[in-house]
Amino acid sequence: MNWKNNLRVVLISTRNPLNIGAAARAMANFGFSRLCVVNPYDVAFREARSAVGAAPLLQKAEEFATVAEAVADSRLVIGTTSVGHRELQHPIRRLEYGARLMLKALPENPVALLFGSEKFGLSNEDLSHCHWLMRIPTVGQDLSMNLGQAVALCLYELARDPKAALASPEKIRSASAAELEQITGRLLQVLERSGYVNPVTATSTDEKVRRLVRRLEIPGRDAKVLLGMLRQILWKLEN
Amino acid sequence: MNWKNNLRVVLISTRNPLNIGAAARAMANFGFSRLCVVNPYDVAFREARSAVGAAPLLQKAEEFATVAEAVADSRLVIGTTSVGHRELQHPIRRLEYGARLMLKALPENPVALLFGSEKFGLSNEDLSHCHWLMRIPTVGQDLSMNLGQAVALCLYELARDPKAALASPEKIRSASAAELEQITGRLLQVLERSGYVNPVTATSTDEKVRRLVRRLEIPGRDAKVLLGMLRQILWKLEN
Repeated sequence: MNWKNNLRVVLISTRNPLNIGAAARAMANFGFSRLCVVNPYDVAFREARSAVGAAPLLQKAEEFATVAEAVADSRLVIGTTSVGHRELQHPIRRLEYGARLMLKALPENPVALLFGSEKFGLSNEDLSHCHWLMRIPTVGQDLSMNLGQAVALCLYELARDPKAALASPEKIRSASAAELEQITGRLLQVLERSGYVNPVTATSTDEKVRRLVRRLEIPGRDAKVLLGMLRQILWKLEN
Repeated sequence: MNWKNNLRVVLISTRNPLNIGAAARAMANFGFSRLCVVNPYDVAFREARSAVGAAPLLQKAEEFATVAEAVADSRLVIGTTSVGHRELQHPIRRLEYGARLMLKALPENPVALLFGSEKFGLSNEDLSHCHWLMRIPTVGQDLSMNLGQAVALCLYELARDPKAALASPEKIRSASAAELEQITGRLLQVLERSGYVNPVTATSTDEKVRRLVRRLEIPGRDAKVLLGMLRQILWKLEN
């Protein structure tokens, strides 16, 4: 079974239907499927669910009256918080670390991730259902995060591939020395024809142009294009 | 100078004022300050800028008529894309890796990060100003990301602290063996008084309860609370 199916994203007392929709979209973007809503503002939830193009995920969202019911089958319950605004009795973990702990649990255990309302976040009652809390490392703790963005960030951190950060750059085949010399030669012809080259310093110009062409780091596939351009310019200069 | 001031977030042809606001909010959340808009839908931009509570960041957003002007002072220009929908001529890097490259450049160089319109993303003309492209690793390439979420994810990856992922769990002081033995003793008294303990198997019950109490991993600060609860229950049972 895909470990992503073990995650329940639980939205509590969400007010704005756009935010429920944004959370559902972020879940689809990162391959998560179980959306639970607790005590949503009814009109908002119906509106979001019936929106044209609403994700299938939103249509099969599970609705619960209480947090206890929404998290009943989970073996790990985590609350999200912007902290700073009250004294919390729980361990608070930064998203980078919290997500790692979640990833350890998810393959074997249902895990619930709770998001509070746009205005008040999770209540103390909501928090009392949590094993620990996770915070998104924003600067300045006064400015709360947009709910849809907070959901997206948590899911991204779970779906993120640390190895991808270490990827080595894709190989771009450089132009060969022969191609670079061809370009140099043709560019020099163009410069000569157009009167850029001073006959007295011609040799030094040769070398300057040769070095300049080497500094450009011309990819192999662009060498032919450049040669074509120069050929055409030369043709025009000669006719 | 803070390297974050070297980043220009460039929104091109954004249509929905909520998305401009969401981008500005994400920038504030992660400590970035320079927002540029190119050819915004005028009404939307004026609306977002004048919204009650609009971030100061939004109010001092710079407006440009063309991409070329918006990126003119940048030494690295990066486009964001959901890929899949057209053949791209640029190297495409996953967010995890692309952000690392950006972090190398940012301390010394102005860097522009481009986001296209909600509906069409970046145009081929927009893309031609970019050195390379960055993609958010969503599953399924058909479903585009919400613009505000895409901005938040890119900025989060830049602000993310890889070391935080390796954090060791905060130390929670466990209850001492003496406290655990006190709890065990009082719990046994309660169980005896309430008739749970069968006198014939009392010794075995003693050991079961002792082991159970040790398995609970009781934090030191909770030991006193539990002792208080048990004392009260015992008092009630005896009166």
